[in-house]
Amino acid sequence: MSGEFDLIKDHFSDLANHADGALNLLDDAALFDISPKQQIVATTDSLISGVHFHLDDPPCMVARKALRVNLSDLAAMGAMPVGFLQAIILNGSVNDLYLESYKNGLNIDIEHFHVPLYGGDTTVSSGPFSVTITALGKVEKGSALLRSGAQSGDVLCVTGTIGDSALGLACRNGKLSLSENYEEHLIDRYLLPEPRLKVGQELAGLVGACIDISDGLVADVGHICRASGVSASIDRDSIPLSESASAAVSKDRVWWECILGGGDDYELAFTTKLSRLESIISIGQEAGVPIKAIGRIGETRDDKMEVVVLDSKSAEIHVSTPGYRHR
Amino acid sequence: MSGEFDLIKDHFSDLANHADGALNLLDDAALFDISPKQQIVATTDSLISGVHFHLDDPPCMVARKALRVNLSDLAAMGAMPVGFLQAIILNGSVNDLYLESYKNGLNIDIEHFHVPLYGGDTTVSSGPFSVTITALGKVEKGSALLRSGAQSGDVLCVTGTIGDSALGLACRNGKLSLSENYEEHLIDRYLLPEPRLKVGQELAGLVGACIDISDGLVADVGHICRASGVSASIDRDSIPLSESASAAVSKDRVWWECILGGGDDYELAFTTKLSRLESIISIGQEAGVPIKAIGRIGETRDDKMEVVVLDSKSAEIHVSTPGYRHR
Repeated sequence: MSGEFDLIKDHFSDLANHADGALNLLDDAALFDISPKQQIVATTDSLISGVHFHLDDPPCMVARKALRVNLSDLAAMGAMPVGFLQAIILNGSVNDLYLESYKNGLNIDIEHFHVPLYGGDTTVSSGPFSVTITALGKVEKGSALLRSGAQSGDVLCVTGTIGDSALGLACRNGKLSLSENYEEHLIDRYLLPEPRLKVGQELAGLVGACIDISDGLVADVGHICRASGVSASIDRDSIPLSESASAAVSKDRVWWECILGGGDDYELAFTTKLSRLESIISIGQEAGVPIKAIGRIGETRDDKMEVVVLDSKSAEIHVSTPGYRHR
Repeated sequence: MSGEFDLIKDHFSDLANHADGALNLLDDAALFDISPKQQIVATTDSLISGVHFHLDDPPCMVARKALRVNLSDLAAMGAMPVGFLQAIILNGSVNDLYLESYKNGLNIDIEHFHVPLYGGDTTVSSGPFSVTITALGKVEKGSALLRSGAQSGDVLCVTGTIGDSALGLACRNGKLSLSENYEEHLIDRYLLPEPRLKVGQELAGLVGACIDISDGLVADVGHICRASGVSASIDRDSIPLSESASAAVSKDRVWWECILGGGDDYELAFTTKLSRLESIISIGQEAGVPIKAIGRIGETRDDKMEVVVLDSKSAEIHVSTPGYRHR
């Protein structure tokens, strides 16, 4: 499916060339001027039953995730959320009980993130239940984090732990079996991502390039590389893993594939000058979100590979499904 | 379906109470402050294949209509568009040719309305092809047109001609047969509405309440009445009809039902003080869009009917399907 997505992005990216703020659809969100000091950041993401979630996922979690994946795009730009709009497409299988739970979930996160629901549209169709949220945020002019800000020599960092969500989905689908508390942790991470808003806002104006990890670590670092005209090497053994993810790869090393290629983590991946690394790590500590260096940014490679992953002997590891996102 | 929609609106309107700018989801778009002088207006609307359009409608027209119905919401607030985001859900029946035509249509209106595509999201599902557009606009602080601004004694006005789109759909579905040029005019109006942006912007700060006619004349005037706590009486014979619509009601008076109850016209309905009517009509003349008085705003009625339609003998006409919007 990945090729299909690329094709589709191409379809619309040339239309977006008209817009100064569109960043050619290459960034997590669009950016446009509204006052001399501030810019508006706008992003839209759909969650579709059967594609991005299961209809038997708790509806309150679906609502919260739909909002959070959009807030994560704002976090990746270093923006502060101001409000959101919701277009929801219902069908016959969505009853009042489902909607009530959905609404309760949404309300929890409206309060939690102080991000008001500005408006919306509700339609009924014969297709799958889907939710499209458009989140709006603001950022000080010139300080938004872009994908295009990486430079050769920079250090590549990530927040939190990587791979939990894709492993959680594998647990949920019965493909991965771990002890109950490990599975619970991973499934929670899949159902309820944590947008790194505070860290993103702190990093705004300080770091090079930034993206949220939605397509998968390798795929998203690839997005930074393409936008910045650089390459990246990731030291696999530096990638921060949760205890649960460590248990998965201890059981079978095949789960590394899931950690490197699986999406939906909604951690931030960003680049920084080496000289700033220490202060950047402190910012994470203060915000209660670990930040870890996992690789380096280099010049464009001759073999056109944007991202390589190296094992402990510096041998390249093949990643077969970067950007696998479907359920 | 109308009851269902009301239920669903209730589901989310209490969540929106948290937001100052949400206008309790009662308006065409949301409004929020961004600088001391300006407000951002944001609106989102989905168009779904099989619900809002046919999969054999020309894709270039689907694209333009998807954008235009959102621009119409901005027009109803008196706002100037600044850009839009698009979340598109594809399926197997949408091929490259379809997408190419869709894209060409979108591009035409991006140029025509000078409204850049800021960003988007593309997904593939097993459900119907659907497009959700979120349009953003700006308006001088305090001058946005709201549904809640109608007062007893005001005159009710509309732009353009009413009912063409619903009659065009009837022609398209083979339910109404007229001479070729009449049918063509009506079908064009159905496929390609004209958002009344210029008139809306001119009326901002001048008139009472305003709405765009998307659900149907009676239903949308009803929205104004509920938001303003007033009633309205519409003089049916004052409703401006195109030659084609006149031909339809000359053929069979049953088509009045379609004109009063059918949606998708995207003309503006608004209220004004009688003393301002003349200058308001001049504004329309300068913008090349006829404005016509079609009724009066009154106190809330004892029988709770918000909108009555009167024939030439001032007898009430029953409208059985106000707000019928489905294809």
